[in-house]
Amino acid sequence: MRLVKAAALFSGGKDSAYSLYKALTQGYEVKYLIHNVFDFPRPSPHTVNIHVVERIARSIGIQLVKETLDKGREKEQLGALLQRLNVDVLVAGDLYLEEHVKWLLEVCEATGVRLYEPLWVGDSARCEQVLNEEVQCGIKAFICGINTSYLNLELLGRVISPELAQTIITLSRQRGFDACGERGEYHTLVLEGPMLKRPISVLSYRMVKSEGYAYLVVESFK
Amino acid sequence: MRLVKAAALFSGGKDSAYSLYKALTQGYEVKYLIHNVFDFPRPSPHTVNIHVVERIARSIGIQLVKETLDKGREKEQLGALLQRLNVDVLVAGDLYLEEHVKWLLEVCEATGVRLYEPLWVGDSARCEQVLNEEVQCGIKAFICGINTSYLNLELLGRVISPELAQTIITLSRQRGFDACGERGEYHTLVLEGPMLKRPISVLSYRMVKSEGYAYLVVESFK
Repeated sequence: MRLVKAAALFSGGKDSAYSLYKALTQGYEVKYLIHNVFDFPRPSPHTVNIHVVERIARSIGIQLVKETLDKGREKEQLGALLQRLNVDVLVAGDLYLEEHVKWLLEVCEATGVRLYEPLWVGDSARCEQVLNEEVQCGIKAFICGINTSYLNLELLGRVISPELAQTIITLSRQRGFDACGERGEYHTLVLEGPMLKRPISVLSYRMVKSEGYAYLVVESFK
Repeated sequence: MRLVKAAALFSGGKDSAYSLYKALTQGYEVKYLIHNVFDFPRPSPHTVNIHVVERIARSIGIQLVKETLDKGREKEQLGALLQRLNVDVLVAGDLYLEEHVKWLLEVCEATGVRLYEPLWVGDSARCEQVLNEEVQCGIKAFICGINTSYLNLELLGRVISPELAQTIITLSRQRGFDACGERGEYHTLVLEGPMLKRPISVLSYRMVKSEGYAYLVVESFK
């Protein structure tokens, strides 16, 4: 049986790692991890840690493709990349943000690629279950960025344990944010999990506060 | 009534801040905060943050005296400093380490200075009460260093809330370390409290792991 050849969007965070894992266990042959570098107004907590994302990808054993998407040309450029990679399927880790999936569907339709969204739950309330599943499947996600309007600075640098997942869920209910951080409430880097051959250990980092966000730039790891 | 003229040993951590507070509220006229810089084999989580300690002292409004103590000449040099400062009393924040108090008593006796230890409880088990008192009196202590044999890296950068104090107490019982970190299990910087005129907010820091210790070097604060 010929496997489906896929590329997976990969920030380095828990949701993209978990969606990749689901795709792999469902028989997709994921040939590439695509890390999109957007022309954001502020630093992306993932892209400032691209050296860690590269290491995660090496530990997963799938080639990482970093693609800079210019403002106004994002769809066109991502579409061109998918064609260049010659994949049948694009795996993405969206949970319920319809506008984002619509955006990806337009890219995929224009290039004849099928979009696969293994984490889609369609509703923020159901993200709690996804977070629990991620923790239960063994993903150790290091919190590398937070929106300080929703979350306390003290979460930075913590690894999401089952207990911390419950704390995040409780806070998300109290403060009205998404338990998985789907709207950027928090960001993670996957240090351990069933998709990684070897766990990653963070040895040093810098913390920076910036306009309502705070993030960690990992300086060394092993 | 002539007030007693005192100097207080001041690392910048919660215990030295709380002992200073007790001395001040008990009518001691604390003229100097003494920050001893020891010739340690590894970086002191307080001294690497001397810029923060200086800011804490400014917020307290008492002159900070930094004194480098050379290996083998510590007693002599601290004694000479006390004489130079011409104080009647030395305030220190020891909890139960007899060898340390003995060391200070020798310094004080040689220089005609009285030692005052407002936090002395004489027993590690009673340190839990001191930690609770510190939190209750409004001290917000930022965890800037940990001994990784006892404490999880995730504590770094956290501010000791009443809840976190209970967590530390529980862990200290389970793992057999001191609840106040009297033996260097963890180190703090006081960011807020009744002795500070203005709270301090940490904006950025670097985390470094080093031989069983991990500490934060604060890079910017306001």
